[in-house]
Amino acid sequence: MPLSLEVRSVKRPIRQSTRKPVIGVMGPAKAGIQELADAKSLGELIARQGWVVLTGGRASGVMDAASEGAKSVPGSLTIGVLPDRKAQVSRYVDVAIVTDLGQARNNVNVMSSDVIVACGLGGTGTVSEVALALKAKKTVILLGANKAGVGLFKNLAPHLVHAVTSPEEAVKLIGDLL
Amino acid sequence: MPLSLEVRSVKRPIRQSTRKPVIGVMGPAKAGIQELADAKSLGELIARQGWVVLTGGRASGVMDAASEGAKSVPGSLTIGVLPDRKAQVSRYVDVAIVTDLGQARNNVNVMSSDVIVACGLGGTGTVSEVALALKAKKTVILLGANKAGVGLFKNLAPHLVHAVTSPEEAVKLIGDLL
Amino acid sequence: MPLSLEVRSVKRPIRQSTRKPVIGVMGPAKAGIQELADAKSLGELIARQGWVVLTGGRASGVMDAASEGAKSVPGSLTIGVLPDRKAQVSRYVDVAIVTDLGQARNNVNVMSSDVIVACGLGGTGTVSEVALALKAKKTVILLGANKAGVGLFKNLAPHLVHAVTSPEEAVKLIGDLL
Amino acid sequence: MPLSLEVRSVKRPIRQSTRKPVIGVMGPAKAGIQELADAKSLGELIARQGWVVLTGGRASGVMDAASEGAKSVPGSLTIGVLPDRKAQVSRYVDVAIVTDLGQARNNVNVMSSDVIVACGLGGTGTVSEVALALKAKKTVILLGANKAGVGLFKNLAPHLVHAVTSPEEAVKLIGDLL
Repeated sequence: MPLSLEVRSVKRPIRQSTRKPVIGVMGPAKAGIQELADAKSLGELIARQGWVVLTGGRASGVMDAASEGAKSVPGSLTIGVLPDRKAQVSRYVDVAIVTDLGQARNNVNVMSSDVIVACGLGGTGTVSEVALALKAKKTVILLGANKAGVGLFKNLAPHLVHAVTSPEEAVKLIGDLL
Repeated sequence: MPLSLEVRSVKRPIRQSTRKPVIGVMGPAKAGIQELADAKSLGELIARQGWVVLTGGRASGVMDAASEGAKSVPGSLTIGVLPDRKAQVSRYVDVAIVTDLGQARNNVNVMSSDVIVACGLGGTGTVSEVALALKAKKTVILLGANKAGVGLFKNLAPHLVHAVTSPEEAVKLIGDLL
Repeated sequence: MPLSLEVRSVKRPIRQSTRKPVIGVMGPAKAGIQELADAKSLGELIARQGWVVLTGGRASGVMDAASEGAKSVPGSLTIGVLPDRKAQVSRYVDVAIVTDLGQARNNVNVMSSDVIVACGLGGTGTVSEVALALKAKKTVILLGANKAGVGLFKNLAPHLVHAVTSPEEAVKLIGDLL
Repeated sequence: MPLSLEVRSVKRPIRQSTRKPVIGVMGPAKAGIQELADAKSLGELIARQGWVVLTGGRASGVMDAASEGAKSVPGSLTIGVLPDRKAQVSRYVDVAIVTDLGQARNNVNVMSSDVIVACGLGGTGTVSEVALALKAKKTVILLGANKAGVGLFKNLAPHLVHAVTSPEEAVKLIGDLL
């Protein structure tokens, strides 16, 4: 019965674990002012919920800003998943996972996150992460993405892609999804 | 001097190796009739040039069709880069590389190719491969891609992305680039 | 001058980071009673030092026991680096990194650890981790290893391999090395 | 019935594919004279059987020598599975697979080979490859290995490990196994 199925679907959470939710915040290393401000707010808001912030771990752009925002919250936990051992680690990262995988580490980022937030689609790395996340049937929230990007990804996976315009909206949505 | 620079740029090949060029043909496992026909033609035309055809290696969609096209040419060589050992290998693949990397094998596909042709952008895996290829500064040819996809990628890497409408045009372009 | 070199060598720490040290505890999923007891003690002793315990993350053998030992210490942090999303995660793991790399995740384990302790050499996975760790010039402590294993690895990398007989000895040695 | 089971076991080949067998030849980049001579002979003998030679692909040591030996045979095919794009490729490699995985590429080497021959155990990379191969239930032939190494691996996987003393013996054994 359609109605019953819908209710079941709404009730089923996207994770069953007793571990803290892990929210992946992805975005370009070379980010604009708005993206950096969004990433920092996102990190702080996610950490306030008691969730873990996972990024690409480097000391630049969205990775650094999201981790910095998270570490402004006492008791927060930030994980950085790095491409290799030469990458400079953000000083706001608590635990650095050194993958030595180059850009293939992007798949580790998304596989390890319960929900992924893409903070801007202005980099090829971020676009690859959104695509890999959708391939793995993960929920992706696009924050401040351009129309071409939202259109492309909404078309590929309508039920998994959400477009939002503020960090607050993103975190509210994650809370509803978890 | 602009003119001189342009000439140098035209003269510099995108590969220096004495090995045969490797052309990656990427595209969805669940492909439409046009994509399959394009992939098969592409495989054949690439093989006729004496180039190696590299795909995701599975027995379905664009991977299978491109390999089949290539194997219709005597002396051709097809490489399939597989996600894991359980994947069914296309019978048109000469050498199967078993990565055991899941979707991270997409990065191996593009890193191992001199030029990448995306045959349709209708799958998240293909979109991830285009993004990873551009991240690695590889030339990508989009064959029959939708407007949103072409727009997104042209915007991210204008000099590396080429949109074409036929396999013949793609192969002509590869010849010019190599 | 030998003496001076030795002094420099003693003074130079094996890590410069301000992050907490990450100690990788490796060992078989099918472990004997002694290995399990050693792993649990190791986890607890490492956590008491305020160091992070990193394992292969699964709910079995040395991975599970080391994580359990660590979680008996308030404020401890355990990271589990998993081969794929189907693996059952130890309930003593705080953050699960899902690599989707199969056994290649063993390289992520060792690259992400400042020092590696192998708790028994009775599994091929553990042997691969010791070899990969030495390849990456990481210090490896062999706890309760058999003679053939100690001989092989001491011969390959005399300065990086240490053989110990108890968890206490291992943790004392890590403290000296860090 | 034991007898019947044994007969079935003998009859079952270790591969079902119609593709050419792929033989992985592993060994140190810094190899001794005997190892290099063995690797070159191995490559030639494998290629004469019509089998593909797969190595780590670099222009040094056992990788280079095995590929060179294979390319002395007309119609041979050599595959090189490289750690990253900066690695210098052996000029005897026909197709270079660029994994960008660092040492985790060792797992791709063994997963892509039907049988693995380790030409000396004098390097940590080779030891990791043998261990990863056994973890994946692949047959491994140790050529000219030291006693400690043979003892360790025979103990870990008695049915999968074979020790031989010459390239001819190795290739004879592979023929029996395939």
